[in-house]
Amino acid sequence: MTKPHKEVVVSGMRPTGKLHLGHFFGVLKNWRELQKNYICYFFVADWHSLTTEYAQTEVIQKSITDIVIDWLAAGINPDQAVLFVQSQVPEHAELHLLLSMITPLSWLERVPSYKELKQENKIKDLSTYGFLGYPLLQTSDVAIYKAKHIPVGQDQVAHIELAREIIRRFAHLYSTNILLEPRALLTQGAKILGTDGRKMSKSYDNCVYLSDSVETAHKKFMAYITDPQRMRRQDPGNPDVCPIYGFHQLVTPLGQVEEINKGCRSAAIGCVDCKKNLLTHLNASLEEFRDKRKALEKNPKVVYDILKEGSLKASKVAAATLREVRSAMGMEGYASK
Amino acid sequence: MTKPHKEVVVSGMRPTGKLHLGHFFGVLKNWRELQKNYICYFFVADWHSLTTEYAQTEVIQKSITDIVIDWLAAGINPDQAVLFVQSQVPEHAELHLLLSMITPLSWLERVPSYKELKQENKIKDLSTYGFLGYPLLQTSDVAIYKAKHIPVGQDQVAHIELAREIIRRFAHLYSTNILLEPRALLTQGAKILGTDGRKMSKSYDNCVYLSDSVETAHKKFMAYITDPQRMRRQDPGNPDVCPIYGFHQLVTPLGQVEEINKGCRSAAIGCVDCKKNLLTHLNASLEEFRDKRKALEKNPKVVYDILKEGSLKASKVAAATLREVRSAMGMEGYASK
Repeated sequence: MTKPHKEVVVSGMRPTGKLHLGHFFGVLKNWRELQKNYICYFFVADWHSLTTEYAQTEVIQKSITDIVIDWLAAGINPDQAVLFVQSQVPEHAELHLLLSMITPLSWLERVPSYKELKQENKIKDLSTYGFLGYPLLQTSDVAIYKAKHIPVGQDQVAHIELAREIIRRFAHLYSTNILLEPRALLTQGAKILGTDGRKMSKSYDNCVYLSDSVETAHKKFMAYITDPQRMRRQDPGNPDVCPIYGFHQLVTPLGQVEEINKGCRSAAIGCVDCKKNLLTHLNASLEEFRDKRKALEKNPKVVYDILKEGSLKASKVAAATLREVRSAMGMEGYASK
Repeated sequence: MTKPHKEVVVSGMRPTGKLHLGHFFGVLKNWRELQKNYICYFFVADWHSLTTEYAQTEVIQKSITDIVIDWLAAGINPDQAVLFVQSQVPEHAELHLLLSMITPLSWLERVPSYKELKQENKIKDLSTYGFLGYPLLQTSDVAIYKAKHIPVGQDQVAHIELAREIIRRFAHLYSTNILLEPRALLTQGAKILGTDGRKMSKSYDNCVYLSDSVETAHKKFMAYITDPQRMRRQDPGNPDVCPIYGFHQLVTPLGQVEEINKGCRSAAIGCVDCKKNLLTHLNASLEEFRDKRKALEKNPKVVYDILKEGSLKASKVAAATLREVRSAMGMEGYASK
């Protein structure tokens, strides 16, 4: 197929559980646009999930299929993008090892998310060598496909900066420009809030999952927090702080969204009606997704085949880059003789 | 061929320059015995040399052939042992990545040689992620062949201990005993001293290289330090502190060694005669090696073919272990479906 941009986009997702509405509106909608315009590699980052889940890997295996079913149901198209599983392309591990030799420890130690994640996950023993090195593995993940754009949120910009620094150091040491410095493609958008009003996240237990039935989703939405200041039906509300209004902005026709905004501020509509109205539109916009999901659940073989083909495609590109890297480093070994 | 022991021995050598008499008497003589009795994997650790030589990789490439020529000339036999180049068996990199996820940073930081090497090489920037992780890469190097014995000097025992700890942690986390805890096979021996009386080492510039001609070796030996207390010919000497006497113990017939000991202590023989006597025996014991070396230098294709075949053999075993590891960790991915 022809695409307006020839540049490569790489993005991965850690298989550490089921996907939720935050993934759907925050990531997958974006991927669906990107695949039309760029050469896209979307991968399940199963090695990355070992950094936190090494002691309970069952969740990783189960999540791989689950996640990719969600991708496909959400319109990620294996004819438009290469979908693969990281561990099926061992070239990532070799590039990671090679780049580890030129990456100063201090660069990894100063990654902001390193300290944060360590604090957030006090219970688990995250002080592993692999956990410290995960931004370096990310660098390999994108460099091996010569990615030019990485779709990220603001909190990931520091990782892209690190990748750029490592690749600049590689270029300088070996006088080569075979690896590209990726740029952050900031996804503006849609911070999806969970049932308790905080960012939707598995660790907060406040998610509406993509695999939730219509009924389960309905129950969760009816229990959703709204504007906490609006105590009674007759109080006026503030849609700007209401998670439900955030969803309206994503799925409800523009004209109606304005009405809802006014109706909330004037207490003309109550939260229950507002939620029911939302669910009508949300269910409509998830209908195709839910149908496809059900069909795919019954036929996991399709998913395996897509991943197998994608991993082979990815492997071919990764192996070619790795040959260039070895050659640039002067590490072809006797094999070049 | 049948061997008295079915256990596996793994040992590697970093290609960072030419081999010297210390390698010949300290390592290769030992390997030659081991290959008769054990299933041996001897490898050129080219990835390991990147930890210190990442900025000058030319020396690595040149040394690979040089070193293996020395191995073969010294009697390391590709029909008895698998000889290969580490970077040609990428499975080492994947196992390294997988084990990195379960290896506490603190275990690597406390390896004694880590701080020492950092101090010794003040000039080079060794504070890389890869340098910190090199004992973990060593663990993968041996674990992937299920090595039971690792021939090491006393200074490497801490690395074996670390490998055992990592493998125990792996066994505990994944309830499996597919990876074996290796044991140190202490090579007692022959601390070979250089021309200045310190341990023979490239970094001290005090080596007699295996590729040195008879004439060059002769000159170096005539300039060798002996017992520093023996200032004049008529002074009695102390063979226990004399590097030349150390060599006599390796190459000179036992009866003569005793005579030399007495002659030195009574000043009956002088250092010049003692050195000439040594050179006769040393040249005799290196004659076969030197002839073979010359022949191999003219025919590097033989070396490449041996390494290619060895790398394929090693790769097959490594891939099988890696499959077991992935399965034990529950990381087969969709591929097992």
